[in-house]
Amino acid sequence: LSLSLKILGTSSATFTKERNQTAQALKSNSSYYLIDCGEGTQIQLKKYSIKTNKIDAVFISHLHGDHYLGLFGLLSSMSLKGREKRLSIFGPKGLQEIITIQLQASQSCFSYQIDFQEINVDTITQIYQDKNIKVEVFPVYHRIECYGYKFTTLPEGYKIIKSTLPKNIPLIKIKNLTKGKDVILDDGTVIPYQKHTTPPPAVATYAYCADTRYALEILPYIQGVDTLYHEATFTEEFANRAETTFHATASQAGLIAHQAQVKQLIIGHYSARYKTNEVHLQEAKVEFDNIIALNDGDLIQI
Amino acid sequence: LSLSLKILGTSSATFTKERNQTAQALKSNSSYYLIDCGEGTQIQLKKYSIKTNKIDAVFISHLHGDHYLGLFGLLSSMSLKGREKRLSIFGPKGLQEIITIQLQASQSCFSYQIDFQEINVDTITQIYQDKNIKVEVFPVYHRIECYGYKFTTLPEGYKIIKSTLPKNIPLIKIKNLTKGKDVILDDGTVIPYQKHTTPPPAVATYAYCADTRYALEILPYIQGVDTLYHEATFTEEFANRAETTFHATASQAGLIAHQAQVKQLIIGHYSARYKTNEVHLQEAKVEFDNIIALNDGDLIQI
Repeated sequence: LSLSLKILGTSSATFTKERNQTAQALKSNSSYYLIDCGEGTQIQLKKYSIKTNKIDAVFISHLHGDHYLGLFGLLSSMSLKGREKRLSIFGPKGLQEIITIQLQASQSCFSYQIDFQEINVDTITQIYQDKNIKVEVFPVYHRIECYGYKFTTLPEGYKIIKSTLPKNIPLIKIKNLTKGKDVILDDGTVIPYQKHTTPPPAVATYAYCADTRYALEILPYIQGVDTLYHEATFTEEFANRAETTFHATASQAGLIAHQAQVKQLIIGHYSARYKTNEVHLQEAKVEFDNIIALNDGDLIQI
Repeated sequence: LSLSLKILGTSSATFTKERNQTAQALKSNSSYYLIDCGEGTQIQLKKYSIKTNKIDAVFISHLHGDHYLGLFGLLSSMSLKGREKRLSIFGPKGLQEIITIQLQASQSCFSYQIDFQEINVDTITQIYQDKNIKVEVFPVYHRIECYGYKFTTLPEGYKIIKSTLPKNIPLIKIKNLTKGKDVILDDGTVIPYQKHTTPPPAVATYAYCADTRYALEILPYIQGVDTLYHEATFTEEFANRAETTFHATASQAGLIAHQAQVKQLIIGHYSARYKTNEVHLQEAKVEFDNIIALNDGDLIQI
């Protein structure tokens, strides 16, 4: 199982004509997982032809408007389309109340069930698992309570090499091979798994860290992930402003990617004062080489 | 004083690639008045280069998401830009609580003062006046509590005909002419206002009626206005659906425009099932001739 990530927004609180507020759609198999949901996220989902019915869970980092204001509209649209599938929503205390009060004001109810789960953790904690992925949540360090999320595909079995496999193995015993166990036929013949399989593909890992100041505290949570998203609101020129607003510079994002020995870094959440993200990219590259400075619409393979 | 109206959204609850959710920016002099504020309204305002700092008041019709979900994001952006001017917000009970709870969740406060006024009327009632316009609110008939708004420019004075005006009139006395009074000079000469002025231009009136079923009850409130906006969610093919959902057909919008003897009708809030608004226009034209079937971005002179 691999992951792909559609970038729906790369602005910070002040969106621009080219950048929408933060939202990302992580895909595993045919399921989507929505990470943050700034205003207009449902418009972006339509633009990129992502069907809202394929979203199985929503993960909100914190309750600044640019990270969740699109949620109620999205939930309403899912209901208008007659969604029946349950939807899981994770976020800090307060989110459920905001959604509930908006629903009450409209004097309607949704066509589907929502499973709200309020996040309140001080270390990395698993909060979700389905047939595709498991999700862990961990604290990051912003002006208000804020969480990062780590997504990991589920381990797969050993892969059968069909061409070398003897024809006389019962199907039911082939399953043992995928678990890394030898098969013993009725006549005593041993079919060694190592000869007829390749090892399971590595799981794919994605860690999402926004919004946050540069914080060594998160290193253990993101260590060695395949792809790290770290916010990079500012360039070095505004390092002081990053510090006072509990945001990070691109350079700090690069530094923590290096320290955590991740494979790939992606950055976004640029302040609207920047016309391009070129300086962000240059400054982050000083610390870490394998970086993508995101733009809206980018598709990242993890 | 005239009015102009920028159409920011013409979809109903389900937006489309071409149509955003309901919002309109009414302009008088250099001030804007925002009527409803669906998700993404601030993005539309930026697209059409309308500065949010020029918005003096916001009028929300009802608390279905497609009419107000863009409000908190807009208010936050105004604050990020350092707005200092007070902002008046009118809407049904519940709106202030929703805004307040979102503000509390973000643990921030706005840079400016908001004057909330909760609407609760059963007949037309004046709720606002400034140097440009007065605004009245009246009930319309939707599934939940919902209000229409009538905007009227303030009466102006008689207009001086400079070319005929004697040079020896003191400036202070010219003001009398603009009020429709003759001026008597110190030497007893009478300067008749009728000779040296033209009558005041008529006030401009705009009535906004959304969302609502076809309702004769609103006729007295919208009688003879220059421009009437009436929702026209459905065509005749879905007249039953209009009835059960407390929406109107285009034909009904035309009919009420005829009955109210308005000068111009504009329609919008189309169901997403329609690719164009051509059938809406045709059907409304049977009842009333001077119609514009709105599209996003239209600019209407009133």
